[in-house]
Amino acid sequence: MYGEIITIGDELISGRVVDLNAWYAAGRLTAAGLKVNRVTTVGDDQESISKALQKALSESQFVIITGGLGSTDDDITNEIAASALHRPLCLDEEMYEHIKEYAAVRGLKMSRAFEKMAWMPEDAKILCPTEEVCGFSLVENKVRLYFLPGVPEQMRFLMDKVVLPDLLLHGKAPSRLPHRVLKLYGLDEPSLAEKLSDLPGKSGDIILGFYPRFPENHITLSLRGDDRSSTAGDLDGMEREIRSRVGSFIFATGDQTMEGVVGERLLQQKLMLSVAESCTGGLIGNLLTNVPGSSAYFLGGVVVYSNQAKIDLLGVSRRTLDTHGAVSDEAAAEMAAGVRRVLKADLGLSVTGIAGPDGGTPEKPVGTVHIGLARGDKAFSGKYRFWGNREQNKLNSAMMALDWVRRYLHGDSFLPGL
Amino acid sequence: MYGEIITIGDELISGRVVDLNAWYAAGRLTAAGLKVNRVTTVGDDQESISKALQKALSESQFVIITGGLGSTDDDITNEIAASALHRPLCLDEEMYEHIKEYAAVRGLKMSRAFEKMAWMPEDAKILCPTEEVCGFSLVENKVRLYFLPGVPEQMRFLMDKVVLPDLLLHGKAPSRLPHRVLKLYGLDEPSLAEKLSDLPGKSGDIILGFYPRFPENHITLSLRGDDRSSTAGDLDGMEREIRSRVGSFIFATGDQTMEGVVGERLLQQKLMLSVAESCTGGLIGNLLTNVPGSSAYFLGGVVVYSNQAKIDLLGVSRRTLDTHGAVSDEAAAEMAAGVRRVLKADLGLSVTGIAGPDGGTPEKPVGTVHIGLARGDKAFSGKYRFWGNREQNKLNSAMMALDWVRRYLHGDSFLPGL
Repeated sequence: MYGEIITIGDELISGRVVDLNAWYAAGRLTAAGLKVNRVTTVGDDQESISKALQKALSESQFVIITGGLGSTDDDITNEIAASALHRPLCLDEEMYEHIKEYAAVRGLKMSRAFEKMAWMPEDAKILCPTEEVCGFSLVENKVRLYFLPGVPEQMRFLMDKVVLPDLLLHGKAPSRLPHRVLKLYGLDEPSLAEKLSDLPGKSGDIILGFYPRFPENHITLSLRGDDRSSTAGDLDGMEREIRSRVGSFIFATGDQTMEGVVGERLLQQKLMLSVAESCTGGLIGNLLTNVPGSSAYFLGGVVVYSNQAKIDLLGVSRRTLDTHGAVSDEAAAEMAAGVRRVLKADLGLSVTGIAGPDGGTPEKPVGTVHIGLARGDKAFSGKYRFWGNREQNKLNSAMMALDWVRRYLHGDSFLPGL
Repeated sequence: MYGEIITIGDELISGRVVDLNAWYAAGRLTAAGLKVNRVTTVGDDQESISKALQKALSESQFVIITGGLGSTDDDITNEIAASALHRPLCLDEEMYEHIKEYAAVRGLKMSRAFEKMAWMPEDAKILCPTEEVCGFSLVENKVRLYFLPGVPEQMRFLMDKVVLPDLLLHGKAPSRLPHRVLKLYGLDEPSLAEKLSDLPGKSGDIILGFYPRFPENHITLSLRGDDRSSTAGDLDGMEREIRSRVGSFIFATGDQTMEGVVGERLLQQKLMLSVAESCTGGLIGNLLTNVPGSSAYFLGGVVVYSNQAKIDLLGVSRRTLDTHGAVSDEAAAEMAAGVRRVLKADLGLSVTGIAGPDGGTPEKPVGTVHIGLARGDKAFSGKYRFWGNREQNKLNSAMMALDWVRRYLHGDSFLPGL
């Protein structure tokens, strides 16, 4: 089955917003074995939307349309769809009740803005009427049309829960192509390319993809589309070969994240973590606590931006700060030991550095970061130099700190140069 | 002048890569006062590219095409452009010499793959022959076509240095359209629509746009393209009207962020902030420290995930935790007062809540969040209910907490229900 994606919004064609809806829909459709032939993005105007819709109807088996379903005046997709498909706009009782209930639960007044969302093209079917988010589907000349909200969270929810199952039910069930993703951290792209330059069978049936996803590098392995002479077993062989060359940099596979992998290992080994952050400003704690259930292994932390806070909250010695500075192996080690002690944790992790754009010196340029890790009465620390802007340096610092914990718990070396 | 963007690549329509080239080109063109009518994305196949090109030629004054100019076998844009425009493919001597030089500098052998890049449609003009990155332009039936590489850095370079100046030189120099963005937080979209439903002059010369950008809502004001009867003064009037209705929810304009605005106010009023985070896990500190120079007003904070940490680090009383629970107005107030005291700050800000997906109870369901703010010996706190997933609840909590500081420093009411 093949089809296309239409994304609607002035914010998209004016470049104010990156079109993550098209990206998400394309990725999910492709992963499900469905083919996307085209993505068309148009603004919030009747003529452009109508033309895009007509063209898609004549060339596709399915069309995913996102945007313009909301309650504000520039949300005109319902009307345009009705007009382009020559169907009247009807008040959908089910949708109306659904919206009324939604408003009631939140203590909101049912208004004309709300009611507007319940007027849909004739014979449109609500998607997922039991949930808060709504969209609708239509079948026109055997083409399946799915109208989804532009709000990314809602669009993603409906895409996964309703649109894909519906398409797979009605389309010919495609055989899913074996595909896997290896995620690496800490190895730059040219070095990675060099290490994998003479992989056996590269030009054969297995397609290797390399995707820098800052600060990670992802390697994808997949089998060529129609070739059935290769199997998942061949992917296993290729993955083994890659792991033998760059295995220690592979921190996760598939949908796993660094913070998720670190959390799993802490849980397995029944260890409680605490974090002392300076230049990362809370980013490490934020990442760790994005994982549901992280309170089982994350006790908390301190964000110590000033020297005084490092002394008062963590017991870092003034002498260390005076002699070596706050950005030093010595300070990182004392911060890690301090936060472990203060929070009564098994492990103390620390980061101190210069995120930039200001604050660098010839000896300690922007991007200089020290990481510390303490357990029992031992504390390790090490120095890195990152090369990005402020947010990139923060992200690299947080990732490297988490990677220390991952490597430490795995028994791998984690100090720079080891 | 109006036109469109065509981005080419299997990696785009399969969702492996986010289409940042379309986003960048659209943003730059719009900022230069040129209108983008459509973005079309197709895969690396002859028929799709050819069709997209033909359609663009018949409906645009300019077309930006990115991708497929490289040396590998899937780079077929040159051939397809020649065929679609009925022009022979010719070896361009200038391009050939350019590529030869490029290879020589890098110690690479001139190969057929390299030579391929020098075959271009007849009368194509190299873009920027003095630089390493190449693309070409063509004029067909008065439509200006620009073919750019898909590598983002190269595409951006050529877009800024060559394409935009060329378009502005040949097109009617557009007067930049007045445009502004108002950012709101804390007002749901239907209520916003309701409050602005009868704005004067809405159907006239000023275009209003509404964009939910979770958890914010953005309103854009712009003047209709060719209408010169309206001026920036009319935008001022409209902005005043909007502010009179929803002004206290407008936290920023243009490129400003909540954390940036809060930072500016703290700096102006010479106040130092400290933060005690529970369910946000470090997100508030992370946002605050994304702003360069934030150490001038942000002292740091604590992430207290466990009750014991709230007691040990912030001096929250066990009795409060036993009587009211960690998620309560009382705990929030003590956390705010505690972090202010411990970090010797002017202001203490706190968040405690249930981000989910687990941990909710009938009395305190997932999404229940208390915020506290302390100054001197006073501490305020208030309760909210958010309706998202874990990350959304964290983000809403962080935004609401920062919005308290913004409103407090502005002398606005900030407690729920005030």
